[in-house]
Amino acid sequence: MTLTREDFVALDAEDVLAPFADEFDLPEGMVYLDGNSLGAMPKAALARAQEVILKEWGTDLIKSWNKAGWFNLVEKLGDKTATLIGADKGEVIFADATGLNVYKLVAAALDMRPDRKVIVMEGSNFPTDNYMVQGLIKQLGRGHEIRFAEDGEILDAIDDDVAVVCLTHVHYKTGNLHDMAAITAKAQKVGALTVWDLCHSAGALAVDLNGCNVDLALGCTYKYLNGGPGSQSFMFVAKRHHGKAAQPLTGWWGHDAPFGFERDYRPRQDIRQFSTGTEPIVSLAMSEVGLDIFMRADMSEIRKKSLKQTDLFIQLIKERLDGYGFSIATPLEHDKRGSQVSIYSDNGFPIMQALIAADVVGDFRAPDIMRFGFTPLYVSYVDVWDAIDRLKNIMESGSWDKPEFKNRGAVT
Amino acid sequence: MTLTREDFVALDAEDVLAPFADEFDLPEGMVYLDGNSLGAMPKAALARAQEVILKEWGTDLIKSWNKAGWFNLVEKLGDKTATLIGADKGEVIFADATGLNVYKLVAAALDMRPDRKVIVMEGSNFPTDNYMVQGLIKQLGRGHEIRFAEDGEILDAIDDDVAVVCLTHVHYKTGNLHDMAAITAKAQKVGALTVWDLCHSAGALAVDLNGCNVDLALGCTYKYLNGGPGSQSFMFVAKRHHGKAAQPLTGWWGHDAPFGFERDYRPRQDIRQFSTGTEPIVSLAMSEVGLDIFMRADMSEIRKKSLKQTDLFIQLIKERLDGYGFSIATPLEHDKRGSQVSIYSDNGFPIMQALIAADVVGDFRAPDIMRFGFTPLYVSYVDVWDAIDRLKNIMESGSWDKPEFKNRGAVT
Repeated sequence: MTLTREDFVALDAEDVLAPFADEFDLPEGMVYLDGNSLGAMPKAALARAQEVILKEWGTDLIKSWNKAGWFNLVEKLGDKTATLIGADKGEVIFADATGLNVYKLVAAALDMRPDRKVIVMEGSNFPTDNYMVQGLIKQLGRGHEIRFAEDGEILDAIDDDVAVVCLTHVHYKTGNLHDMAAITAKAQKVGALTVWDLCHSAGALAVDLNGCNVDLALGCTYKYLNGGPGSQSFMFVAKRHHGKAAQPLTGWWGHDAPFGFERDYRPRQDIRQFSTGTEPIVSLAMSEVGLDIFMRADMSEIRKKSLKQTDLFIQLIKERLDGYGFSIATPLEHDKRGSQVSIYSDNGFPIMQALIAADVVGDFRAPDIMRFGFTPLYVSYVDVWDAIDRLKNIMESGSWDKPEFKNRGAVT
Repeated sequence: MTLTREDFVALDAEDVLAPFADEFDLPEGMVYLDGNSLGAMPKAALARAQEVILKEWGTDLIKSWNKAGWFNLVEKLGDKTATLIGADKGEVIFADATGLNVYKLVAAALDMRPDRKVIVMEGSNFPTDNYMVQGLIKQLGRGHEIRFAEDGEILDAIDDDVAVVCLTHVHYKTGNLHDMAAITAKAQKVGALTVWDLCHSAGALAVDLNGCNVDLALGCTYKYLNGGPGSQSFMFVAKRHHGKAAQPLTGWWGHDAPFGFERDYRPRQDIRQFSTGTEPIVSLAMSEVGLDIFMRADMSEIRKKSLKQTDLFIQLIKERLDGYGFSIATPLEHDKRGSQVSIYSDNGFPIMQALIAADVVGDFRAPDIMRFGFTPLYVSYVDVWDAIDRLKNIMESGSWDKPEFKNRGAVT
C-alpha cells in the first residue's frame, strides 16, 4: 500500500513526543533535518543566557563562581548527561571541545597500558578523532601506531597488541551504529581499554555505557542535545578507573585544591581530574536548557520514533524517488542504524543546495553523501513526508541543475 | 597637601576616558575593583548574545558557520586583539582556555629546541601555568625540568640549557610587572624561546610583543578585556615561527583542509594550526563586544589613568590607613607595576569580606593578600577615594572582626 501525506498526519496525531516540538523554535515552514550537525534552539535558551549575562555576570559578578554555581556546573551538567548514556552520578563531566577530550582520554588510556603500542580506530571516522590521536602519538614518540579498521573489520583488528580501541559509536557520514557491547567485550578480553565517542549517539538513542562495561567515553552537546553552537563536550570515566586514569592536560580545575594555589600539581582522584581550566560560562550554562528537555523525555520513545521516521524516510525514497540515482548508505537493520539516513548521489552537492533553498535542511559530506538527521523531539512525521515531497519536486523539475547550487562555500 | 574627595571629583571631570564608563553596567553604588579577575559587563553584551542565539542559531542554524562567520571568528577576534598587544594581523588567534594554550605554546617551543631540557618559570605564578607544563613534561618523559625563579632571579636563571622561558607578564598576586624586553633579549641571546602569559597585562597596559621580539604569547579575555565569564583565551605566534612552530593538540580546525575530511592530519602553516576544534560560539562572539570598546580607546591613556589611580590609591593607604597593619605588595616604580594594588594584611580575608559587604569589590588571595584591580574604562577617580574611605570606616569601627566575615567559601 502506497503511503500518503495523510498517513503522516495520522502518525503525528498519536505521537507521544509531539508536544516537545513546542519547546523549540525553528523558522516557519522549515523542515530541519540537520540536528545531527547543530541541534535546534530551545525556546528557553535566550532566557537562560539573559539570566547568566545580566544577573550572574552583570550584577553578581565574581560572586557567581559560588552563588550561581559556575565552578561546579561542569559536574552538575555531567550528572544530568549521565542519565542519558547509562552512566552513574560522578562519572561524567563537561569540559572543552570534543577533540581535546579524545586526546585526554586516549592519553589516559595509553598511560594505563604502557606496554602496548596499538590504537584501533576507524579511518573513515570524523577526522578530528584521528587527528588528535595522530598528534598525541607523534608527541609521545614511543612507537605507538594507529591500526585503522572499518566496520566489519574491527573485531578482528583487536588483538593482544592493542592498548586502546577508540571508535565513534554512530558514524558521522553513514549513520552506521557499532555494536558497543560486542566491541567493548572483545577489547576487554584482550586487555585493551575502550574510548567511545558518542557525538552522534548521545541524545539520539539509549546509550548504555555501564551496561556495556565501557571504560571511557566522550561526546558533544551541540547536536542531538541542543546545547547551542559549539557548546562544551562531556567525558565519561568509569568509576573503577577513578584515581588510576589520569589525563595530561593538568590545569587548575583538575587540581585537588584548586583554590590553594599550590605550586605543584596534585591530581583530584575523581572525574574532576579530567577538567582543565575555566570554561566559557555563557555557552556552558545554556547547554543545560537542552539537557533539561531531555530530562523530561523518554529515551526509549525517542529511539522508537527515530527508527520509525528513518524507516519511513527510506521507504519513501524507494517508493517515490526511484530512478534518480539515489542509494541508501545507512544500514537497514535497526541495530546497525543511528538516527540519520545518508544517501549516496553523484549530484549530492547541488541537490542538497536546492533542497535547502526549498527549506529542507540536511547537509552534504564530500564526496557524495547527502545526510538527513532525525531528532524526534522536534521533527514531525509530516516533516518526513514533506522532505521527500520537496526532494521529488526538485528531481522531477531538474531544478537542482543550476550554477547557483554548484558554488561551494568554505564551510559545508 | 592632604587629598580630599573633591580632588577626585575634579580628576573625573577632566578624565578623557570618563565617557567609557557608560558602556558598562555595574550595580548602583558598587566600587568594582575586581576587573582583574572578571571584567565588568558591557551594556551591549546581551544584545550580541541575543543576535547569536535568536538569529544566528535559531533562524540561520548551520548556515551561520559561513554566513555569520562563526568559523573564522577566532581569527577575526585575534586580529582585533593584535592591535592591543603589539602584534600584526594574522599573528593572533582565539582558542580554548588559558591553560590549554600554555600547554600548546610550551609544547611547540620545546619541539623547536629538542636538545635543551630546561623551562624557566616563576614558582609563585598563577598555578595553572606551572601545572600545565608539569603535565606536559611528565607526559613527554624526556628529562625536561622546570627551573623555578622568582622576580629578580630570572635573568640569572636563563642560560644555555634553557629551551623556553615561560612567564606571566604581570604577577596575579602582587601586580609586579616583568621587563618583557630585557627578559626576552636575554632568552634569545642564549638561544631560548619565550612564552609570555598576558592574562594580567592585555588590556591593562600597552603590551608590545613585536617591539620586544617575543616568540609566543597567550592571554585571557575575561579580565581586562571584558569578554564575559570564562571567555576564550588568545594565542600569539610571531610570523617568523609560522610553519615551524607546531602544537600537538592537532584538531580539525588546525588542519590545512578542515572540510576535506581527510584521514590524516596535515597542519596549516599559519596561526590557525594553533586552533584545535569547535569553539563555544555564544561565549566567543560575546567577547567581541569587550574588544570593540577597546578599539575606540587609547591604550596610552588607559595606562596613564591606571598609574595615576594606583598611585593615588597607594598614597591614600599611606595617608589615611596608617597603623592598621597594611603594607603594599605592589612595586612603587611605574615600570614594575601592572594595573593593580595588592596589600598584605594578616586579617586580609575578613577585611576584604567586610569591604565587599560595603560594596567595594576586590578579592583575597591566600595567605595574606588583598587585591584591588584598576580598570580605567569603568573605574572613576571617585571610586578610588570611596574605596579607601569605606575601608577606613571598616578599620576604625573594627566592623570586619565578625564571624560572618571569617567564613571561607569553596571559591574565593
